[in-house]
Amino acid sequence: MPILAQVLYDFTAEPGNNELTVREGETLTVTNQNIGGGWVETQNSRGESGLVPEDYIQIQHASASHSAATGGAATSAPILYENADEIEGVNGNGQWSAAAWPASHAAESWDSTGQRRSHSFYGQSSVEDDEWDDASDDGKYSSIYSSSQPEDSSTFQRSGGHYSTMKLSRNKFPFSKTPNPEMYLLCTLPPRGRDVIKIYMGDVGPVWAYPQNQLDCVVADPKKGSKMYGLKSYIEYQVTPNTTNRPVNHRYKHFDWLYERLLEKFGSALPIPCLPDKQVTGRFEEEFIKMRMERLQLWMTRMCRHPVVSGSEVFQLFLNYRDEKEWKIGKRKAEKDEAVGVMIFSSMEAEAPDLTPVEVEQKCETYSRFTKAMDDGVKELLHVGHLHWKRCTGPLQKEYQKIGKAFQNLATVFNSSGYEGEATLTGALTTTGKIYEEIAELVAAQPKKDLHFLIETNNEYKGLLGCFPETIGVHKAAIEKVKEASKLLLANKISDQDKHNMTKHLSTMSYALQAEMNHFHTNRIYDYNRTMQFYLEEQVKFYELIAEKLRQAHRQYITL
Amino acid sequence: MPILAQVLYDFTAEPGNNELTVREGETLTVTNQNIGGGWVETQNSRGESGLVPEDYIQIQHASASHSAATGGAATSAPILYENADEIEGVNGNGQWSAAAWPASHAAESWDSTGQRRSHSFYGQSSVEDDEWDDASDDGKYSSIYSSSQPEDSSTFQRSGGHYSTMKLSRNKFPFSKTPNPEMYLLCTLPPRGRDVIKIYMGDVGPVWAYPQNQLDCVVADPKKGSKMYGLKSYIEYQVTPNTTNRPVNHRYKHFDWLYERLLEKFGSALPIPCLPDKQVTGRFEEEFIKMRMERLQLWMTRMCRHPVVSGSEVFQLFLNYRDEKEWKIGKRKAEKDEAVGVMIFSSMEAEAPDLTPVEVEQKCETYSRFTKAMDDGVKELLHVGHLHWKRCTGPLQKEYQKIGKAFQNLATVFNSSGYEGEATLTGALTTTGKIYEEIAELVAAQPKKDLHFLIETNNEYKGLLGCFPETIGVHKAAIEKVKEASKLLLANKISDQDKHNMTKHLSTMSYALQAEMNHFHTNRIYDYNRTMQFYLEEQVKFYELIAEKLRQAHRQYITL
Repeated sequence: MPILAQVLYDFTAEPGNNELTVREGETLTVTNQNIGGGWVETQNSRGESGLVPEDYIQIQHASASHSAATGGAATSAPILYENADEIEGVNGNGQWSAAAWPASHAAESWDSTGQRRSHSFYGQSSVEDDEWDDASDDGKYSSIYSSSQPEDSSTFQRSGGHYSTMKLSRNKFPFSKTPNPEMYLLCTLPPRGRDVIKIYMGDVGPVWAYPQNQLDCVVADPKKGSKMYGLKSYIEYQVTPNTTNRPVNHRYKHFDWLYERLLEKFGSALPIPCLPDKQVTGRFEEEFIKMRMERLQLWMTRMCRHPVVSGSEVFQLFLNYRDEKEWKIGKRKAEKDEAVGVMIFSSMEAEAPDLTPVEVEQKCETYSRFTKAMDDGVKELLHVGHLHWKRCTGPLQKEYQKIGKAFQNLATVFNSSGYEGEATLTGALTTTGKIYEEIAELVAAQPKKDLHFLIETNNEYKGLLGCFPETIGVHKAAIEKVKEASKLLLANKISDQDKHNMTKHLSTMSYALQAEMNHFHTNRIYDYNRTMQFYLEEQVKFYELIAEKLRQAHRQYITL
Repeated sequence: MPILAQVLYDFTAEPGNNELTVREGETLTVTNQNIGGGWVETQNSRGESGLVPEDYIQIQHASASHSAATGGAATSAPILYENADEIEGVNGNGQWSAAAWPASHAAESWDSTGQRRSHSFYGQSSVEDDEWDDASDDGKYSSIYSSSQPEDSSTFQRSGGHYSTMKLSRNKFPFSKTPNPEMYLLCTLPPRGRDVIKIYMGDVGPVWAYPQNQLDCVVADPKKGSKMYGLKSYIEYQVTPNTTNRPVNHRYKHFDWLYERLLEKFGSALPIPCLPDKQVTGRFEEEFIKMRMERLQLWMTRMCRHPVVSGSEVFQLFLNYRDEKEWKIGKRKAEKDEAVGVMIFSSMEAEAPDLTPVEVEQKCETYSRFTKAMDDGVKELLHVGHLHWKRCTGPLQKEYQKIGKAFQNLATVFNSSGYEGEATLTGALTTTGKIYEEIAELVAAQPKKDLHFLIETNNEYKGLLGCFPETIGVHKAAIEKVKEASKLLLANKISDQDKHNMTKHLSTMSYALQAEMNHFHTNRIYDYNRTMQFYLEEQVKFYELIAEKLRQAHRQYITL
């Protein structure tokens, strides 16, 4: 009996990749499910064959007919969520407590905009699986697969979205994308005591106060835990900061909670990149966990490197809590923090003369242009990177395999000549053919060894740069407010003191932005320098290895 | 005003190469004529864009409307032939004299089967231009281009046909592809005196008598000549044999005459590969002449290497004639030669005991299988070679260019940061980008440096192997005749002596085939050994150069 599949979303084949263009609602025959990498070989009703991403289709398993019988047209996607819901229903205190399931988080799970749903460039599927680690493993994994929803079908968009841009919908500002800076501009309280975030004048301009020893941590040792008498399983990662060297355990949802807190608290002033998406990048649990861990590590490293974030109470709590009680108390405190949103600027203090609104605006414009331009540049590089990845692991690998086969085939023919004295030639041709097959494997394996890191770095930057429009938006709104202030003053709607305060606060905001940009630049220079070096080193090794392999083949021939 | 073009032949795009599928008769808009490599960028009426081979379309130049007005739907192809006809009309003695224009040759020019029309794998056009060097240069060249006619639209067939198989239509055997061996089998004359072609028993079996010093020649120094007071121009090549070291001049049509003679005389016993096709492989006259010369050289070298061919009177005449008179007398003599076709075997004598028909048949079968298998193997290698060529000069080059551009673009963005201390990084990124652009050029230029020779060698072998079915066909027909002989003897239709003669002659034929196969094997081993070594050497250099370039880029970065 043929395996049928229903197309869930339109998919446009990329030419030359043996893909098949399909339309939503179409029924396909699955001809090979063992392709790997998130692809399935199918045939449409017109007899055309090709690959489609497995998360674009719904395979009608034997059980599907049963489900269809009982649940009508229900796809497994809603089934997943229903189950997740059910599970949540028996979870802990049995209600949507903020601690167990942050409200904004829950809302997002149901968000149909797919904002946080993205597609890995590896050509593998990506799903929204917020509670994946809470789901039990029996048969769930496949449901998760079929419930995925692609962000976009264009190659460009599909690629490398795992550090996607900052969340757009924010509880604090439900009606506007940009937080309103008014509250801060008009406030009169000076920064208080030990919470003050100082901005110093360094060689490059305003800078944050950097700690003497840079905080760092290691995310490692993922362990499967379970609760509800084994009915529910989850993955716990060990996070060990270099300060205490004492590991703490965290589940993915704790990281997500931390992200929410950091975003809420610092999002108006600093780019807080999304957590590595909750996507499935590996086809198997192990691969998935490894990839997620790798990306959590990158995210944590970046957060540790940030002097403001790493020094914050909530971040320290995450890394250093001693027991469940301390964690719970700390959590509750963090969630009640009021110095969040634009009010974060009220904790800041710049040791420098106030800037005029014109100076502030100029700086803001410069940063806006730069971050936009870099965003484009990074996306271009990601785009060509993905193309190159695809070529190396696709057509190029196949081509070298074919070259290898052709040489070996010729050797076999020569061997059958019955003519004496050509053993050396046929041996050499066979070796050459095998070496070209080895080269095919080298070519296909190389992107994972070098391009991967170049892409990961650029993905991180894509994520960071995606946060700037909002951060810069807050500044622009503040500049507008201060511009209005003159009119308001004339209309006697605000006092001289109010206007003075606003200008001063705008200046503080600008110093914060400058300090942040300088932090960004320093890191950028470091990161790109390191990544490019690594990439080029590996590329050199790669080409040298190919040359060496071919030299080896060459030596097999008789010198005439 | 948009440039329009008419599609002359169906063309099916290869996926992933930015090609466009077009159908005969379709009208396209030409969007870029400067693509190079024989490709033109076009857009069809549905707005789809892509590349099509320029010789599959007819671009409607400004002058085309004029020609349409005067000549109706006439394409330039018939115009070419009409002109050629006209020119021939005023040529020399003004008639189809065999000397000036061999009958078989003239017939072939008008042959609509396109047998000798093939397509260069370089993606450039190929035309039947037998009398190209007789045509005057004013404006003719472009007509020749648009008159091209592809052999086949499939990639496989399109590729590397310039040493196409032996001509099928042969004057001597107008009703059969296979010459009838009966005339030789039944003849009773023993080989005569100095014309005897001896076959010796060597270490590897029957071998031809090889001369002590191998004949060789250099084809060089193409010169434009003209006659008819400059109305007609032609190219004359200088051919210098290593025996006399005295150059003789020959036009392409003399080579073609030689080919006809060799084919007629030796074609039943030896594979006489086609002359390098009369195709246009270069876009410009100079390139075309160079390519033709290179291939005439290869052909002459192969003929010189053959002991039977190189020792023949007609071949010696071609290389050694002293003056026009000697040449003309020699030509006439050669054309009257009667030891041609299957009768060539009557000049052969093997110093070995006669073989039984069973032994002959076994040998024949072995060779038949081997040449068929090798033909397949060579074609497969050519196929992947052409694919690889296309990829290197097409998508791969573009991809490296894009990578280069992306790095340089990022450097430009970084440069605009206004942040101090990143000059080293931006400099390094720019260098890296430029180096990737250099690599793009290296990748695109490499096939000409190494793959070209691998392909040329395989094309030569494809040409040689294409001759074997006919040569082997003669043998198989002879074997059948000898099998019949027993019946004929019983029916008293032939004598015992006749049957004995036939068996003896079949044995001679087999020795000839064995000697030829041994010659073929020796050359094959030599050629493939040499070609593979050269290819691998160049490939090693290529990858080492890339590694060195990347090392150079790597050095630009600061070690952290």
